[in-house]
Amino acid sequence: MKRRDFIKAATLTAVTAGAVSCAGWNPFKKKPEDRSPKPYKPDGSARMRLSYEPYELQMAHTFTVAAGSRTTTPDVLVRIEYDGYTGYGEASMPPYLGHTVGETISYLSKVNLEQFADPFDIESIHDYLEGLSKGCEPAKAAVDIALHDLVGKLHGQPLWRIWGYNARKAPNTSYTIGIDKPEVVAEKTREALGRFKVLKVKVGLDSDKEMIETIRSVTDLPLVVDANRGWKDKFLAIEMIHWLKAHGVQMVEQPMASLQDNAWLKERSPLPIFADESVQHLSDIDQVCGAFHGINIKLMKCGGLYEARQMINYARARGMKVMIGCMVETSCAVTAAAQLSPVMDFADLDGNILITNDPFKGVTVDGGKLVLPDAPGLGLTEV
Amino acid sequence: MKRRDFIKAATLTAVTAGAVSCAGWNPFKKKPEDRSPKPYKPDGSARMRLSYEPYELQMAHTFTVAAGSRTTTPDVLVRIEYDGYTGYGEASMPPYLGHTVGETISYLSKVNLEQFADPFDIESIHDYLEGLSKGCEPAKAAVDIALHDLVGKLHGQPLWRIWGYNARKAPNTSYTIGIDKPEVVAEKTREALGRFKVLKVKVGLDSDKEMIETIRSVTDLPLVVDANRGWKDKFLAIEMIHWLKAHGVQMVEQPMASLQDNAWLKERSPLPIFADESVQHLSDIDQVCGAFHGINIKLMKCGGLYEARQMINYARARGMKVMIGCMVETSCAVTAAAQLSPVMDFADLDGNILITNDPFKGVTVDGGKLVLPDAPGLGLTEV
Repeated sequence: MKRRDFIKAATLTAVTAGAVSCAGWNPFKKKPEDRSPKPYKPDGSARMRLSYEPYELQMAHTFTVAAGSRTTTPDVLVRIEYDGYTGYGEASMPPYLGHTVGETISYLSKVNLEQFADPFDIESIHDYLEGLSKGCEPAKAAVDIALHDLVGKLHGQPLWRIWGYNARKAPNTSYTIGIDKPEVVAEKTREALGRFKVLKVKVGLDSDKEMIETIRSVTDLPLVVDANRGWKDKFLAIEMIHWLKAHGVQMVEQPMASLQDNAWLKERSPLPIFADESVQHLSDIDQVCGAFHGINIKLMKCGGLYEARQMINYARARGMKVMIGCMVETSCAVTAAAQLSPVMDFADLDGNILITNDPFKGVTVDGGKLVLPDAPGLGLTEV
Repeated sequence: MKRRDFIKAATLTAVTAGAVSCAGWNPFKKKPEDRSPKPYKPDGSARMRLSYEPYELQMAHTFTVAAGSRTTTPDVLVRIEYDGYTGYGEASMPPYLGHTVGETISYLSKVNLEQFADPFDIESIHDYLEGLSKGCEPAKAAVDIALHDLVGKLHGQPLWRIWGYNARKAPNTSYTIGIDKPEVVAEKTREALGRFKVLKVKVGLDSDKEMIETIRSVTDLPLVVDANRGWKDKFLAIEMIHWLKAHGVQMVEQPMASLQDNAWLKERSPLPIFADESVQHLSDIDQVCGAFHGINIKLMKCGGLYEARQMINYARARGMKVMIGCMVETSCAVTAAAQLSPVMDFADLDGNILITNDPFKGVTVDGGKLVLPDAPGLGLTEV
């Protein structure tokens, strides 16, 4: 093919295609919709403005983990306004993780986004956010989520599409059955039937087998279990994992506390074991690689979608499985996490289902499966 | 703040902003442009169509590397047409790398993109492309580049903006001075002055010091050197690296062939050393991590932008530096590589400058620095 002919041929094709769509005009036929995109271009005149408000999450039921019980979760809602657009973000701070509303507000008060004329420049903004302070992951996640929501809205596309993910590949989410009396566990399990296809069971106490047997008296649904470091003896733990596999359990999250014990389990476990408490940041993956089959990524642990996406790629490249989890949080942060779910092995995104004052509607669950909004950014609407 | 008030406050702000832009109408004032994006939404009816043509690249000068000399480079141009849009891609096959036009055409003839209704679903399409055949990296890169160009056009945005990179952070590109007689080297160096701010010198022969001294007789510009595995003795190599540093060299590419020798050099080298021949894919990074400070990513080596971006993140997470290189190729593949340059430590993107029949215009060089088009996809225009 001669010089230029390659391009000329393509131009001809395009012109012909255009001509065909105009030819044979018929007044009764609707004019084909012009589907060509019109991009948003930052002209450098607008500036981002960050604002935030504490917002206490009310929980439908008393929530019990090894560290204690509670009925509310401290939270801060964030928005970034820019040229008439608003991106939403959120910092959720379950008390046992050590972050506070005070810490988050203090971090957010230092953030000056007005210096950035270009919200699309996520790399530079993240360098700045990281440099402001160590830690403060919930606060960083809040800004990160709001920034991604804003940028998605400026693109006019959902984040999953911008990232090249297929929303139809979003997995089932598990739904958590907390530690409770058998009659309560059975009742909660019955309530979950039909709505969910995978149940997550909190284990790590003497009552583990009773919990599982109670659930199995109600349903044969696949289960995953989360021991939250609750098992203290590796020999009992491996025996329990074999027992769990025989009872239809598919995965075990954070069976024990120490890397050595988990590495010992990994060599012997017939089920994949996932790190949660043992992995927070991208930089932690190297050291957990030998001790777990996979990692549980949570936006409030790592500081947002930017690092979460790096963690996915890194863990995959190291041959690990990946799951996405969440805290008790609104549909804002849960929908942000759900944007990543099409490339996940497991999803545990029920944090928004546990609260009664969710100000947003975003990701939904249909027949157990996560359904991502096909709307710009996170795709949130107000309730 | 009460339930819903957070969202109401934002809605009010947006409405007010809209009202302000309409109030106080002045016939002499230009109506503010509506900058809201209009996204392209795939409706599932259109299909992607792949086509390709061999295209022999004519080189301005005889090109000499250790493996031999040549005046042409085999190449295949690719396009993906979809709903009136065209994405361009390219496979460049310098003969010494072992890929052929025949191999590339054979791979491309197996690719059926018409089964995909959604070009945005890059993850799924890559799984499919990878499953078709092992190897064939130039062919895979061609499809990958064309797909990214298409998707960028559907978004209406340049790839660098979609990825959150800042085009103003694109680095200087180096310009290669080939191995030649001193008078030719001096002449080529003079020609490069003003146009480039970093020169790359091919070394790895007995004439290394003469080459550098000839260039230094013309200019003090920073240099990088590429030994292409040409140094055979590690003691001579480390001595040479010290000499090079004293002569203003900033980086050494692939000094020796074996990982052991390069690891030995890495421990002692006052300059960063980069892997080129030693690293092709994401899966190679683990093994070169201890032997080099950085890696040279090339689209024709790894199979395109999708894997290249994973390699950047992975290498960074392992504490390595990253540079982007290219083959002799048109502005199509060079501009694709240049989209990644804002997050690179070094860029060596002069492959398009070496040919006389470039059918495209894309990335340019201004005062030595790469200038990325602010246009959808790759941002190519025809010459």
